[in-house]
Amino acid sequence: MRLEQLEKLIELFMRFPGIGARQAARFAYYLVDENKKTRDDLIAAIAALAGIRRCGECFRVLGAGSCAVCADAQRDHSTITILEKDADLAVFERAGVYDGHYFVLGGTLSEFGDGEGASRLRFRKLYERIKTTPSICEVIVATDATPEGNFTARYIEKILEPLQGERAIKISRLGRGMSTGAEIEYLNRDTLKDALDNRR
Amino acid sequence: MRLEQLEKLIELFMRFPGIGARQAARFAYYLVDENKKTRDDLIAAIAALAGIRRCGECFRVLGAGSCAVCADAQRDHSTITILEKDADLAVFERAGVYDGHYFVLGGTLSEFGDGEGASRLRFRKLYERIKTTPSICEVIVATDATPEGNFTARYIEKILEPLQGERAIKISRLGRGMSTGAEIEYLNRDTLKDALDNRR
Amino acid sequence: MRLEQLEKLIELFMRFPGIGARQAARFAYYLVDENKKTRDDLIAAIAALAGIRRCGECFRVLGAGSCAVCADAQRDHSTITILEKDADLAVFERAGVYDGHYFVLGGTLSEFGDGEGASRLRFRKLYERIKTTPSICEVIVATDATPEGNFTARYIEKILEPLQGERAIKISRLGRGMSTGAEIEYLNRDTLKDALDNRR
Amino acid sequence: MRLEQLEKLIELFMRFPGIGARQAARFAYYLVDENKKTRDDLIAAIAALAGIRRCGECFRVLGAGSCAVCADAQRDHSTITILEKDADLAVFERAGVYDGHYFVLGGTLSEFGDGEGASRLRFRKLYERIKTTPSICEVIVATDATPEGNFTARYIEKILEPLQGERAIKISRLGRGMSTGAEIEYLNRDTLKDALDNRR
Repeated sequence: MRLEQLEKLIELFMRFPGIGARQAARFAYYLVDENKKTRDDLIAAIAALAGIRRCGECFRVLGAGSCAVCADAQRDHSTITILEKDADLAVFERAGVYDGHYFVLGGTLSEFGDGEGASRLRFRKLYERIKTTPSICEVIVATDATPEGNFTARYIEKILEPLQGERAIKISRLGRGMSTGAEIEYLNRDTLKDALDNRR
Repeated sequence: MRLEQLEKLIELFMRFPGIGARQAARFAYYLVDENKKTRDDLIAAIAALAGIRRCGECFRVLGAGSCAVCADAQRDHSTITILEKDADLAVFERAGVYDGHYFVLGGTLSEFGDGEGASRLRFRKLYERIKTTPSICEVIVATDATPEGNFTARYIEKILEPLQGERAIKISRLGRGMSTGAEIEYLNRDTLKDALDNRR
Repeated sequence: MRLEQLEKLIELFMRFPGIGARQAARFAYYLVDENKKTRDDLIAAIAALAGIRRCGECFRVLGAGSCAVCADAQRDHSTITILEKDADLAVFERAGVYDGHYFVLGGTLSEFGDGEGASRLRFRKLYERIKTTPSICEVIVATDATPEGNFTARYIEKILEPLQGERAIKISRLGRGMSTGAEIEYLNRDTLKDALDNRR
Repeated sequence: MRLEQLEKLIELFMRFPGIGARQAARFAYYLVDENKKTRDDLIAAIAALAGIRRCGECFRVLGAGSCAVCADAQRDHSTITILEKDADLAVFERAGVYDGHYFVLGGTLSEFGDGEGASRLRFRKLYERIKTTPSICEVIVATDATPEGNFTARYIEKILEPLQGERAIKISRLGRGMSTGAEIEYLNRDTLKDALDNRR
């Protein structure tokens, strides 16, 4: 008995990350009850995404003008961090603990084939970026500590291996171990092993 | 350093019910990474909401054609249930435990003034609907068991009081007490009092 | 490799309501690290439970002296509430919304036989208490709103039925419906049905 | 109105790790309703803790006989891991990722003085153990990644510093960084910084 127009909208909201049927329905009813102005603003904001381009170097989303990170002469040109997605880059910048360059890969591979697929990711662009930027001497692979992230990291390392024959490039991954606040009593086996292996 | 286009969209998503800054950002990045077709579908589905009308009798959202509930001669014409919003009506219909009529008020009042405001709600329409429908002999006020819901229920009862002088109309509220599965040990004071008062 | 003495203690803690293996182990290590005085206090407090008797009328746990509830002449002698366990009685008294008498049954029956078993519960004592107390004219069956609680309530009603032939006794159950703070949008079918059936 | 005997027991249960007033009361009522045999078993198991000794070398809890870890000639005698408590040692042994020796410190210090207090912990024993065991060439400080754990770790390092002048002893801490399964998007600033600093 639910309205056809609502059904379509609810279905689209259910594709949003972390949104189930119930919350998707709440979103739809919320928009029905909102005034036309809010809905028009939302439509305009979504339409504006078409105008979003990606930086030709780091591939993060970009509005008008050049990429403030890639164009920043003050940043450390010797280091580049490879990230899965834009949201990860936002976390790095907000933390303010890194001042090198970035490369947004666009997703992850999975050994079971349910990742993005190598062709959709920017592996070729990544290879070219590093090959043609002699200033880069360290590549930090900063994928998630998940099976897909680990698999993607190994794939990246393999792709970049030939470059290591050409010049000195250090390829590293983010450190594994105890996160801030973690208690020994609640560590799982893998994290405890990482924490021991990476003791310092 | 976040993109202006994204900021606007994130801000709009943060108005969605239950959505904070972090999840709003995830929605925005999700849409950036989705293909244009999905975004166009979403825009079309939101735009289609403008075509949604409300039934002139029960005021629930309606597509083309007449309201299947109000037009159903099989339903019980002596009873009408007043609900806050469309989502509540959907719960009633899905449960299949009621076959009377409905009236969607459009929100709640609050004694602290942070509800919808009496002018935005359909109190006048409600009064007229009941006054001009002599078949109605019971009004069930089915607002939430929250302070706003309770306040709104009292307001509705006061508005309908004059009608009770004209003809026999029973005004009731949904029963209060233990919900299915509740354990005595975990009841709060108010619910225990309701459960005792409404014993039967 | 865990200590035998600890294993036994952990096993006993795992029988405590809501306690799993991990928390049971934390309790055991906590006691190992506590000083002997605390452990001796705990032993004494557990041993003292053997001295706990139950009131011969309401069957709640009792220390020295008579039952303050049963002996209270100010309380309403016409009403008795049947409860599953002592913790439920504590909830009633803390809420301060009831001033009649009590009867603690000692557990629940289950139609699947995984409750306490009729012989372990005080059904006979309950029958006798009500039969021999002519002042009682209302029995409130206040079992949990769970399958076991419902089954036990039906059993109690059947047992007390013969008494209703002898004199006027009203047998009621706690009201079912929306609990304080509940929202229509999140009601399950059974609770919505109860709330409609018990509207007032 | 709660029983004096119960109050004392509830108060003792409220000192158990992670137990609040409500669950402490449930434990007490559970024991009241249990048979005497179970209570006697529990009393015996708690009393048996008095017979628990600690190993004179690693200070973990021990029943009869010698410490299976300290006596194991197969284990790596060059490495010792310092742990806060027995439960942490159990995590290490269950994970099976370490085969060196242990030292259980007995708690943590806090810079705000709300830790165990230096006198209650086994700092002197720790110093002596390492000073008099020439085979030890690495000390792994495995305290929690909490403020108290960090403060205690720094204190341990300071205490052991003089020994580093006498012979080559490496003092390390467990690695910090992303735990297994962690996603970049949800890292806090400190963990991201650790993960970057400890990249490899």
